Amino acid sequence: MTTPATAANGVRDALAAQTIELPSWAFGNSGTRFKVFNQAGVPRDPYEKIADVAQVHAYTGAAPRVSLHIPWDLVDDYDALATHARDLGVSIGAINSNLFQDDDYMLGSLTHPDAKVRAKAVKHHLDCIDVMRATGSTDLKLWLPDGTNYPGQDDIRARQDRLADGLAEIYAALDDNHRLLLEYKFFEPYFYTMDIPDWGTSLVHCLALGERATVVLDTGHHAPNTNIEFIVAQLIRLGRLGAFDFNSRFYADDDLMVGAADPFQLFRIMNEIVGADALRAESGVNFMLDQCHNIEPKIQAQIRSVMNVQEATAKALLVDREALKAAQTNGDVLGANGLLMDAYNTDVRPLLAQVREEQGLAADPIAAYRASGYGEKIIAERVGGTQAGWGA
Amino acid sequence: MTTPATAANGVRDALAAQTIELPSWAFGNSGTRFKVFNQAGVPRDPYEKIADVAQVHAYTGAAPRVSLHIPWDLVDDYDALATHARDLGVSIGAINSNLFQDDDYMLGSLTHPDAKVRAKAVKHHLDCIDVMRATGSTDLKLWLPDGTNYPGQDDIRARQDRLADGLAEIYAALDDNHRLLLEYKFFEPYFYTMDIPDWGTSLVHCLALGERATVVLDTGHHAPNTNIEFIVAQLIRLGRLGAFDFNSRFYADDDLMVGAADPFQLFRIMNEIVGADALRAESGVNFMLDQCHNIEPKIQAQIRSVMNVQEATAKALLVDREALKAAQTNGDVLGANGLLMDAYNTDVRPLLAQVREEQGLAADPIAAYRASGYGEKIIAERVGGTQAGWGA
Amino acid sequence: MTTPATAANGVRDALAAQTIELPSWAFGNSGTRFKVFNQAGVPRDPYEKIADVAQVHAYTGAAPRVSLHIPWDLVDDYDALATHARDLGVSIGAINSNLFQDDDYMLGSLTHPDAKVRAKAVKHHLDCIDVMRATGSTDLKLWLPDGTNYPGQDDIRARQDRLADGLAEIYAALDDNHRLLLEYKFFEPYFYTMDIPDWGTSLVHCLALGERATVVLDTGHHAPNTNIEFIVAQLIRLGRLGAFDFNSRFYADDDLMVGAADPFQLFRIMNEIVGADALRAESGVNFMLDQCHNIEPKIQAQIRSVMNVQEATAKALLVDREALKAAQTNGDVLGANGLLMDAYNTDVRPLLAQVREEQGLAADPIAAYRASGYGEKIIAERVGGTQAGWGA
Amino acid sequence: MTTPATAANGVRDALAAQTIELPSWAFGNSGTRFKVFNQAGVPRDPYEKIADVAQVHAYTGAAPRVSLHIPWDLVDDYDALATHARDLGVSIGAINSNLFQDDDYMLGSLTHPDAKVRAKAVKHHLDCIDVMRATGSTDLKLWLPDGTNYPGQDDIRARQDRLADGLAEIYAALDDNHRLLLEYKFFEPYFYTMDIPDWGTSLVHCLALGERATVVLDTGHHAPNTNIEFIVAQLIRLGRLGAFDFNSRFYADDDLMVGAADPFQLFRIMNEIVGADALRAESGVNFMLDQCHNIEPKIQAQIRSVMNVQEATAKALLVDREALKAAQTNGDVLGANGLLMDAYNTDVRPLLAQVREEQGLAADPIAAYRASGYGEKIIAERVGGTQAGWGA
Repeated sequence: MTTPATAANGVRDALAAQTIELPSWAFGNSGTRFKVFNQAGVPRDPYEKIADVAQVHAYTGAAPRVSLHIPWDLVDDYDALATHARDLGVSIGAINSNLFQDDDYMLGSLTHPDAKVRAKAVKHHLDCIDVMRATGSTDLKLWLPDGTNYPGQDDIRARQDRLADGLAEIYAALDDNHRLLLEYKFFEPYFYTMDIPDWGTSLVHCLALGERATVVLDTGHHAPNTNIEFIVAQLIRLGRLGAFDFNSRFYADDDLMVGAADPFQLFRIMNEIVGADALRAESGVNFMLDQCHNIEPKIQAQIRSVMNVQEATAKALLVDREALKAAQTNGDVLGANGLLMDAYNTDVRPLLAQVREEQGLAADPIAAYRASGYGEKIIAERVGGTQAGWGA
Repeated sequence: MTTPATAANGVRDALAAQTIELPSWAFGNSGTRFKVFNQAGVPRDPYEKIADVAQVHAYTGAAPRVSLHIPWDLVDDYDALATHARDLGVSIGAINSNLFQDDDYMLGSLTHPDAKVRAKAVKHHLDCIDVMRATGSTDLKLWLPDGTNYPGQDDIRARQDRLADGLAEIYAALDDNHRLLLEYKFFEPYFYTMDIPDWGTSLVHCLALGERATVVLDTGHHAPNTNIEFIVAQLIRLGRLGAFDFNSRFYADDDLMVGAADPFQLFRIMNEIVGADALRAESGVNFMLDQCHNIEPKIQAQIRSVMNVQEATAKALLVDREALKAAQTNGDVLGANGLLMDAYNTDVRPLLAQVREEQGLAADPIAAYRASGYGEKIIAERVGGTQAGWGA
Repeated sequence: MTTPATAANGVRDALAAQTIELPSWAFGNSGTRFKVFNQAGVPRDPYEKIADVAQVHAYTGAAPRVSLHIPWDLVDDYDALATHARDLGVSIGAINSNLFQDDDYMLGSLTHPDAKVRAKAVKHHLDCIDVMRATGSTDLKLWLPDGTNYPGQDDIRARQDRLADGLAEIYAALDDNHRLLLEYKFFEPYFYTMDIPDWGTSLVHCLALGERATVVLDTGHHAPNTNIEFIVAQLIRLGRLGAFDFNSRFYADDDLMVGAADPFQLFRIMNEIVGADALRAESGVNFMLDQCHNIEPKIQAQIRSVMNVQEATAKALLVDREALKAAQTNGDVLGANGLLMDAYNTDVRPLLAQVREEQGLAADPIAAYRASGYGEKIIAERVGGTQAGWGA
Repeated sequence: MTTPATAANGVRDALAAQTIELPSWAFGNSGTRFKVFNQAGVPRDPYEKIADVAQVHAYTGAAPRVSLHIPWDLVDDYDALATHARDLGVSIGAINSNLFQDDDYMLGSLTHPDAKVRAKAVKHHLDCIDVMRATGSTDLKLWLPDGTNYPGQDDIRARQDRLADGLAEIYAALDDNHRLLLEYKFFEPYFYTMDIPDWGTSLVHCLALGERATVVLDTGHHAPNTNIEFIVAQLIRLGRLGAFDFNSRFYADDDLMVGAADPFQLFRIMNEIVGADALRAESGVNFMLDQCHNIEPKIQAQIRSVMNVQEATAKALLVDREALKAAQTNGDVLGANGLLMDAYNTDVRPLLAQVREEQGLAADPIAAYRASGYGEKIIAERVGGTQAGWGA
């Protein structure tokens, strides 16, 4: 049985090196179409969001980057924002475009029947590329919310062709060190077709664009029962897994804390990552959270989420891969499954506590954050103004 | 082959007598958590909503009632509202309570761990019962949005017990001619448990309450692949089907126009209704729409929805039930299925046009409404003020 | 953090007392409609099946009962079979009827349109009750495979009525110390309707029958995304949870080893059991396995399955229920969830090894069984004859 | 409103030219893992299967080809078989390989960890290619049943690489006029991973193989709620839709008669086909049935299925595409949807009766077949021997 005590230095080094990018929007208010419950202390601008991100990094040591969302995180001076981030120990990660909150986009953005609307959507990405240049970001992340609600509403193939044209314009505008990360989603906000509903469609467009176009896998964006680790393995095999949007779901795109609904699935996903040696930063896979915290405190929820990814990763690192390969080769179904489960059943919390202490961090990030008084401080200070949410 | 030309008077009479209740909120703006697209001409108060409802009734002759939603449809003078409705040819139907838009309800309403919040939720229903008395409504419709997002967040059984207590208080406050209609929903706005997730749970509570408690079946509130007509048949068999919330879905609670996603399913549902002789008003089944029109014009979408229910009903009425019963008794699988499909494959639009004309209505309600200029009129007139939506 | 070392005696006692009933059919060959792969050493009669069951019990100490399936386990002398079982340290548990392998049942058994077929299906249960009397079994377990494949094929309500009649006849024939356990299933072997598709339908029939009729929950028999622990909690609350058929699934009724697909779900289920104090034998909940081992060795797979249930139970027993209740009452979403996860993340294998050693068993049942040579022995000895499968 | 009376000659010509390939195995017995119900009159060899296929063609005029399944349809003399078919008015279509019924394939065929098993699976395809040469078939259809049941059982990526190698060997052995049709399936007969679970994986392998490798879409092989017509449209757009396996499902791979479960979906699929002008034989899309008839008479069920595809096609041909395009371009959501529904709601049975009569066929194929006495004849004649099924 593999135990934390026997974990080699390599495991601890890998854990110490792992980083997870946080989304600025997870610190704002969020909810369902029925209600957004506002929480006290929520940031009112990108600077306050970054301050909260820095808290998660301060206690986990594993969250040194923040994704921005344009226009929600528009500021006048990106040098100032980047400096603010750097002063707090974090940096700007991917730039996310927004194609779902403009009235013009009711029937689509890059796929809209009207060329003027499509041009506007392309132009928005040129603006995002400017933000990339201003912040030093290298990843342009594009989730296409486009789709239709009714059969016949629009032509499915024509929308694909328009999409291909728009993506080509955007891709052509990227700098050489830029990547395009293309996300897919099964349904919502449209309910008949989505224009990029699955990894196959995202891949088809990436292949047409070029080598710097890669797929983003959001763990909540699949049909019921989909085997997500298979997709992870396939995209790694093809060299086209650009990034994760980690979160968790029981039903649809629930956006719960990653690891909350199915920690075993999260482990299986990380097992594919580790097995393919794709955990290293050089692998080009950007591990990000993309979650909603509708009813729970947001900073703690992000800390917990980072810890959940770390725990799944630690377990994946503890898999005895030589023994596993032997059992697989021998067709020992129960033996191979048992080796995987041995790692999963290990309590890796002591190991991660050790890794944290070796980095000079508290063993228990949640307890340390709670003891810090930061939560109370922002509730007291952040009075007035407009709380950040999905619209600002 | 059954054809409209051979449709007996009984079929035409049944179609002429069929009524479908409209939801006041379908005429306001709606959307997803990502965006609510506002539409020009949307009502700004309950009076304007009822005026729009009356349009649907004017062109279909089949939508004489409107469900109100409290507090969205609160007014000072219900006599005036009821008179307004009556003057326009419609009446007030079910009163819907709202348990999802108060900040206190973040962790539940009737199931909340805090007794004070539960009392508030009960009190809201007493207010709704007052509205029933003021408007002459006899149906209190309760959709419980309560649930939890995370395993462990609250005690599942304790929440059931609190729910049972709260429902008992509400039921006790009803007048003798009042019914309680209890709706269930698979998920959303909570993503781990819903406190009434399925028809079984709704039924269990109705049985505990008494004979005037019945189940509401919303066609979008089920797990993937659920056979809804089976539930319809079972609830009719048990005498506990109180009402439908008709709509349509491809994925989750999409709230598309009824009949838009799976017209054959709608036919199968109506086939159970007709086969059980539950189409008659005296059966106690209230046929209601509950839909969102996020991207399409709302009045036309309601007209289309009423027509879709009518068409499914007409086909169900055309089923040759004697021949069907014989084929079923004989174990003639293909013959029985073929008889059902014969009715479904019939084009009933001419039959419904005839029924409308016999009622003095235009044969094509959509064309007649479009020609009326009402849509342009309300866009011109309804300027200023706050458009109705799910919050008002 | 709860750890095995601090586990109170009560936890160890509860684990030592836990029993799981094994299905005789899990030791025979099984497969899909595409292929049944035969395995060497598979039993050829009920005596050999019971011998294999006894192996699982010998190494786990937790599997002292075996469910029989009639007619697969028909023997001439049940006294001899019961004595055989007793000699090997196990006893006869529930008697399962079979309504799916007679040519007469193509269109249904208890719901068949033809009264003669229905009478035959009722009669089969009277025979099963005789087997109960002969073996001392007190549980008659009935899974109704009946359903239809095509809309219109038969009348949904009529089938419910026939089912109610048949069940009433069977229930009336039970002895006073007998229970009727009524299972539901979402789909398969029929694909349009099942006649008992969900827990609500099973409960409705149990309520009509009487107090000794209870629901069987098979963990693989639900719609996608169904929250199973909610149903467990609800049925316990209503006093109608009679038994589990444990197994595991990613897609449909996959019948994988319990705990293999979603160990966290298994934990959540056991958490409801423990939280309701329904783990005790007196609670009347019979914990059974019902699985297929299509490609893995069957005895080891059963041992692993028993261990998986034990591990989930151990974790559930380690939940700090006082602290959990306090966090729930305070609305501390993350704290409550964290307390549950603390128990789940605990490595309980050392605790279970200790419990086993206290019972005089080997700490590692799989290793001990593998070392015993039993697997090789039965392969050598069980040559000739007809291997047991789903048809014998 | 479009009606049959106004259907242009082009519509009737397209319907008269449409062909649907039948699977030889649909005429044998089939069932579930629980039970295969044998039916009287079922063929006992490939010659009798082809005789039954010819009946379907005789009454529909639309089923002139039959897919063979190797080894189920192995014969000594393919010239004789082809002559037999030709004499009856039909011809040999695609050759289907079988990778699921050999004991060696328990853990996979083309993806098996053991190179010897993989070589055997490749060799089987070389044999199938020989059958193609002997029969004049040009389509090699490969459904890969391979997969795993347990996490860790085998390496997901390694299996993809082995699959790619095996497919490359098979592809290299094809003649220049041969195509490889590669099918995908979501789950079953394996329940953790399938090695080709989705269209994306099938496409990835086809792209690696070359231009004569195309994807087979089986309508029952998708995750719940998947929008199948989107995949159809995408594969047509990419020039990689090689064939359909038509059938119907409510839950999983139910293999019901096509059009039985969701006739509107079938219409939407055919609408994409017609809209892309892919109905013509030259388009390279082979329209095939792949169904089970577990409880209904098989020949009639195939006739009904062909008719269901014809009806869906007729409706798709009646869509007013100019008006539809205009509505789509104008963003008229309800108008565009309404135009599609107008075609769907049309009763096309009279139109198809006319098309049949113009071909010298009976207007009602089911009635004509029933009146022919063929069903009674084969029941009387086909006595003794072994009925065909999925194993022979």
